[in-house]
Amino acid sequence: MKPMTVTLAQLDFTVGAVQRNTDLIVTTIGKYSDSDIVVFPELAITGYPPEDLLFREDLEALVEQALTRIAEAAQLNIAVVGHPQRVGNELYNSVSVLHRGKCLTRYHKQRLPQYGVFDEQRYFIPGHENGIFEWQGHRIGLLVCEDLWHREPLHRLQAERVDFVLSLNASPYEIDKHQQRLHILQQRVSETQLPIIYVNNCGGQDELVFDGHSLVMDGQGQLIAELPHCQPLCAQVHVDATGKFTAGAEFSAYSLDTLEAAYQALILAVRDYVTKNGFQGITLGLSGGIDSALTLAIAVDALGADKCHAIMMPFRYTSQMSQDDAREQAARMGVSYDVVAIEPMYEAFIGQLAPMFAGKPADTTEENLQARIRGTLLMAVSNKNRSLVLTTGNKSELAVGYCTLYGDMNGGFAPLKDVPKTLVFELARYRNREHEVIPNRVITRPPSAELAPDQKDQDSLPPYEDLDKILTLYVEQDWSPTAIIDCGFNAADVLRVVRLVDINEYKRRQGAIGPKITSRNFSKDRRYPITNHFRYELERQVQARGSYEKN
Amino acid sequence: MKPMTVTLAQLDFTVGAVQRNTDLIVTTIGKYSDSDIVVFPELAITGYPPEDLLFREDLEALVEQALTRIAEAAQLNIAVVGHPQRVGNELYNSVSVLHRGKCLTRYHKQRLPQYGVFDEQRYFIPGHENGIFEWQGHRIGLLVCEDLWHREPLHRLQAERVDFVLSLNASPYEIDKHQQRLHILQQRVSETQLPIIYVNNCGGQDELVFDGHSLVMDGQGQLIAELPHCQPLCAQVHVDATGKFTAGAEFSAYSLDTLEAAYQALILAVRDYVTKNGFQGITLGLSGGIDSALTLAIAVDALGADKCHAIMMPFRYTSQMSQDDAREQAARMGVSYDVVAIEPMYEAFIGQLAPMFAGKPADTTEENLQARIRGTLLMAVSNKNRSLVLTTGNKSELAVGYCTLYGDMNGGFAPLKDVPKTLVFELARYRNREHEVIPNRVITRPPSAELAPDQKDQDSLPPYEDLDKILTLYVEQDWSPTAIIDCGFNAADVLRVVRLVDINEYKRRQGAIGPKITSRNFSKDRRYPITNHFRYELERQVQARGSYEKN
Repeated sequence: MKPMTVTLAQLDFTVGAVQRNTDLIVTTIGKYSDSDIVVFPELAITGYPPEDLLFREDLEALVEQALTRIAEAAQLNIAVVGHPQRVGNELYNSVSVLHRGKCLTRYHKQRLPQYGVFDEQRYFIPGHENGIFEWQGHRIGLLVCEDLWHREPLHRLQAERVDFVLSLNASPYEIDKHQQRLHILQQRVSETQLPIIYVNNCGGQDELVFDGHSLVMDGQGQLIAELPHCQPLCAQVHVDATGKFTAGAEFSAYSLDTLEAAYQALILAVRDYVTKNGFQGITLGLSGGIDSALTLAIAVDALGADKCHAIMMPFRYTSQMSQDDAREQAARMGVSYDVVAIEPMYEAFIGQLAPMFAGKPADTTEENLQARIRGTLLMAVSNKNRSLVLTTGNKSELAVGYCTLYGDMNGGFAPLKDVPKTLVFELARYRNREHEVIPNRVITRPPSAELAPDQKDQDSLPPYEDLDKILTLYVEQDWSPTAIIDCGFNAADVLRVVRLVDINEYKRRQGAIGPKITSRNFSKDRRYPITNHFRYELERQVQARGSYEKN
Repeated sequence: MKPMTVTLAQLDFTVGAVQRNTDLIVTTIGKYSDSDIVVFPELAITGYPPEDLLFREDLEALVEQALTRIAEAAQLNIAVVGHPQRVGNELYNSVSVLHRGKCLTRYHKQRLPQYGVFDEQRYFIPGHENGIFEWQGHRIGLLVCEDLWHREPLHRLQAERVDFVLSLNASPYEIDKHQQRLHILQQRVSETQLPIIYVNNCGGQDELVFDGHSLVMDGQGQLIAELPHCQPLCAQVHVDATGKFTAGAEFSAYSLDTLEAAYQALILAVRDYVTKNGFQGITLGLSGGIDSALTLAIAVDALGADKCHAIMMPFRYTSQMSQDDAREQAARMGVSYDVVAIEPMYEAFIGQLAPMFAGKPADTTEENLQARIRGTLLMAVSNKNRSLVLTTGNKSELAVGYCTLYGDMNGGFAPLKDVPKTLVFELARYRNREHEVIPNRVITRPPSAELAPDQKDQDSLPPYEDLDKILTLYVEQDWSPTAIIDCGFNAADVLRVVRLVDINEYKRRQGAIGPKITSRNFSKDRRYPITNHFRYELERQVQARGSYEKN
């Protein structure tokens, strides 16, 4: 074996941008012409996940042209690149090894995930053959993402006596997901003693954030090098004549705590959504509460203060503290800030509705009306300025429906959609760790929607610490209400929370997308019917146990 | 073989209502105690599709109890019923043959659809064994839905010398789908000479309508009997000692044209969505245009006039004709009708936005504002009266984004979501075939959103006849823009339509669900990324051909 250099191209590919993705691949191949091999992520040519674009023949034709271009560009080195590949009537999730106008080897992914956010069996059929090529005397195996989460594909490469493995990935971020990846890689290496070069995608695509963390693990399970979290970049690794790996200078030592990682993932998600969709900037409603405060901080960190516009929309129930804190936060962050009172619109609506509402008591209708006037104002500003409205609700609210459809739910992207309220508090404190960007009072005051006099979230919900625990068990882990009650939670609380989650599916279905950061988000990860009578069964069960007392 | 009677139970099961579905099954078994066998649809116990409820252990436990109850109830006859079944770690889409407390046979569906609206491989693994049982000397095979759309499963039953086959289905309606079903059944019978008793689900579940059409086909491919379209009911078929099938008296001769079938499917969808979700009735905005006119007609036919409330919300651009026609239609249909002018709210918004909008010309912002004020009014009425808002947009509008998010898109259910505009016209004329329920002028006037002076839809879109053809090719059949242009459509039109479809994915993602009636709806059937740069590739391609002239 001769010494060899491999480049890990942890780059940000855009779904559908075949030509621009190919430009990026070709440029990278040129830039790393001193590398023997440049490895790109899974489906780099189309971006991941292309979803139903994969049914388009015009996409296929462009991918064919891209492969030709890349193969021609790889004169001094080898390009290993992921792309969809049709063979007869069958579509595969493939990897091509390209060099001097030729495809040296083509590999088809064997394990197609069809769980969580993944839908690969809708498009692809599984391959059944190993992917192996030889270069400079090294025998190199190929795997794609999910392949490595199963024993067999790597074991079959081991049986074919490969020296190391290139793994091409589009693995989305979730909290502590990278620890899972390291664990799996270590397990596979301990089974096979095969070194693995793992290259991951890096960028935001709708509700997914690909967090990078590309890495090299040697045959003893030692982490030789790791690329950073949520930063698109390339780095080189060297293999000597004995098969020993050494990291290039571009790899930097780096560690990251959970909050920092989550915060950076949210920033990348917002930045990529806004820029890839061509918006000039963002607009949001700044209420003086913690959700909009954190959302604005993320937006400013993602886009810069000059791209962010905050609007406070006070009404008779808005406290002076909220107005002061919103203004103060906008000033500290340096964003443009407007105040638009909603009183005249509210009075106009109430006046026009009066004949139809005669004799009927006030209820949540009037609360929702305030939220909808605010939502309409934000959309008017967005339409006029071509900016994106960020909606500021968190996962706990969205779970129990404490949000108004066509009101505060208005917006094209929801940065906190998958952030439970307790984590909102932690992230706000994390963001304030060096400077108090978010006025401290915003974090410490009791949360309120301020849609009625002296309203507090906790008047009608269990404390957020309990709520979030119940929600995690029910939403993310499929626990039954009775099992949650048996954990020690108040039966009436559990039943109320579960009922609220179930009956609010219709709201979530019309909500904006937002970045997944937990093990199960409300969207691709959790696909519930709207018409769903299972909740009646649950209520009956709990009542039958006699442990239910309505409070 | 002894003579035998089989009941086809084409009933309406509700997703998640395990206990109530089981009550319906047990009652039906009792009512048809003179039948030898009562056959229910696919996954009858849970309803179809249960989606991620299938991950719930508490659902599994209830299904187990249901199977015990049904087996005990089937003392005088045999119940053949579909349900999810866990075996170890694997979940199957199964059928149990139950009698006197026992399960005589259990069959696991072999072909799991993972295309179109179907996601069965997310939940189930395929079975590999035949399902066969014997009764009264007849050897009877079992199949579930998709099994029959492939050759092998029926051919394997033939090899096992069964006398006939029971096929349990949850096959959703689309236009002319039943002709496809008959074609496939005839093909299978001609291959195997095996008679088939085909039982389909019947009811609305979110965006799917199961249209019934259960049937019996003999070994010569003759249609012995067919149950009606979109009507839940049971009927008996008799098999004599020679294996000859005869229909019971409950089967009625029946035929249906395409428009009638589509109209009835929409009625069933609306009725089931409203009643299964417990709404008191519906509210909609009646604009004097054809979409809201047809939507109201469907709602009245589905629920009765007393459950429907129409609101006209005029503004300065609303023509007198629209106001007259809306009032006239409400009177003809006998629904409650209110008029709420939006001028005061519009003035209030414009007044409050004036400082921020200073110096900026009027644009679509002001048009959207009108739609959002109307949407907010409808939601206020809905909140106060606990009625469901029906949103009235059609498929062509939704495709090109000629609708306002958080405005006229507001609503929980969209009856015309999958109805192209040209079909809206046909259905309106169909509904008027006996009485002029929809004032004729509503059908014949040029469509307008009336959001600006003298605005007409066709000012900025190709004629609807062309638009719908382009949309069908692009949206439902995945044609490339260049291929559509090559069909003879104006290149600039095609490019504009395709671009509008692509950039409006974000709107559709936040839109209400509505019944699928075409071969591909905008929801489960068509899963497109929001962030999608493929459109730039398309534009480049068309421009490269030099056939693009901006008009």
